[in-house]
Amino acid sequence: MYANYSQPAYSQHTPSSGSPYHNHGSRHGRPQQSPQPGFGYQAGPPPPPGADSQLWQYFNAVDTDHSGAITVTELQAALVNGNWTRFDLDTVKMLMGIFDVDRSGTISYNEFAGLWKYISDWQNVFRHFDRDRSGSIEGRELAEALRNFGYSLSPHLLSLVERKYASEPSTAYGPPPGISFDRFVRACVVVKSLTEAFQRVDTDRDGWVQMNYDQFMSIVLSAP
Amino acid sequence: MYANYSQPAYSQHTPSSGSPYHNHGSRHGRPQQSPQPGFGYQAGPPPPPGADSQLWQYFNAVDTDHSGAITVTELQAALVNGNWTRFDLDTVKMLMGIFDVDRSGTISYNEFAGLWKYISDWQNVFRHFDRDRSGSIEGRELAEALRNFGYSLSPHLLSLVERKYASEPSTAYGPPPGISFDRFVRACVVVKSLTEAFQRVDTDRDGWVQMNYDQFMSIVLSAP
Repeated sequence: MYANYSQPAYSQHTPSSGSPYHNHGSRHGRPQQSPQPGFGYQAGPPPPPGADSQLWQYFNAVDTDHSGAITVTELQAALVNGNWTRFDLDTVKMLMGIFDVDRSGTISYNEFAGLWKYISDWQNVFRHFDRDRSGSIEGRELAEALRNFGYSLSPHLLSLVERKYASEPSTAYGPPPGISFDRFVRACVVVKSLTEAFQRVDTDRDGWVQMNYDQFMSIVLSAP
Repeated sequence: MYANYSQPAYSQHTPSSGSPYHNHGSRHGRPQQSPQPGFGYQAGPPPPPGADSQLWQYFNAVDTDHSGAITVTELQAALVNGNWTRFDLDTVKMLMGIFDVDRSGTISYNEFAGLWKYISDWQNVFRHFDRDRSGSIEGRELAEALRNFGYSLSPHLLSLVERKYASEPSTAYGPPPGISFDRFVRACVVVKSLTEAFQRVDTDRDGWVQMNYDQFMSIVLSAP
């Protein structure tokens, strides 16, 4: 049912209405601040022909210097988790890698439309699987999410994913800490990327692969 | 010559004299701030028997609430790169994974001694290979560093490492951005961890391994 969510950018669902910044946003997130002079559709730069006015407003809220393109720094400043922490650089780089289609190093308005939808879709996924509404994804929630995406990981692998993407180090006592929104998205994309890379090598589909050091390292280093 | 630096924590070199916070520190790094009331050896909590007074002072500067143990938050607040950016959460988690020996979730004074030496040693490595004194490690510098550690990666793999650990996304124009201190340490530890894991599976040392999906995922997800 949710298998398409492992690549929301390419899903054909209707755009979700929520704002990624509002829903997982924080007091620090630009779009929750009061409109500033020059902010928004009316007073801001004119939108490209056919642009959605709401989306254009969001774009200009993130493009704080109104250069017409969102830099990594602007993107990282705008993207916040439910606990007000910034997105990891690795997650921001992953997003730029997917949506900076022309490799300009910045996100144009057209690229932003895809990024916005991707994050909105992932937020719906996150909210859906955050069963206890804790604002983070814990072990069982992670297992359910990955199972719904079609990845049946062993308990050992699930525990490795949970620890690797947790927002804090594990301790000997108490349950493992949960996974924040940005790291949850990265964890799912990494599992998908690694699994698909393994399957490409496993041409006879017997669950075993033979690979040399270069192939192995190349697969791992190509994952976000 | 530098092969031991891929695991500085276990090297038998004499401790380096520099402060990790001074050398890669920033205006935000505690130890560069003026001593505060209660700061330092004389006025702070009494050091454990046999503690190095300078190190105890550093410990208390990082342990800002003087609880006697450094939390992840305190560690992340203290550790900064040369460009004043904070260490990545993944790097901080990696450091906690190595030095929080009793898995308490915090770094005690004794654990801090190891952490301090590890970061100091890595700083010497970083300075050594940052040939152009740019404050970041670029392609050739990375290649030289990894070669000195004993890892002869192909140009393709080197380029993947460079892009993955760069502090900014790559663009179609200009050279790839450099790697900051924290991400350089993580890159080297990841290459070491993956290479050693591959070699453990490659029992006949022919450069090829056969592994199933669980082994593959387990190796990758266990790397920092």
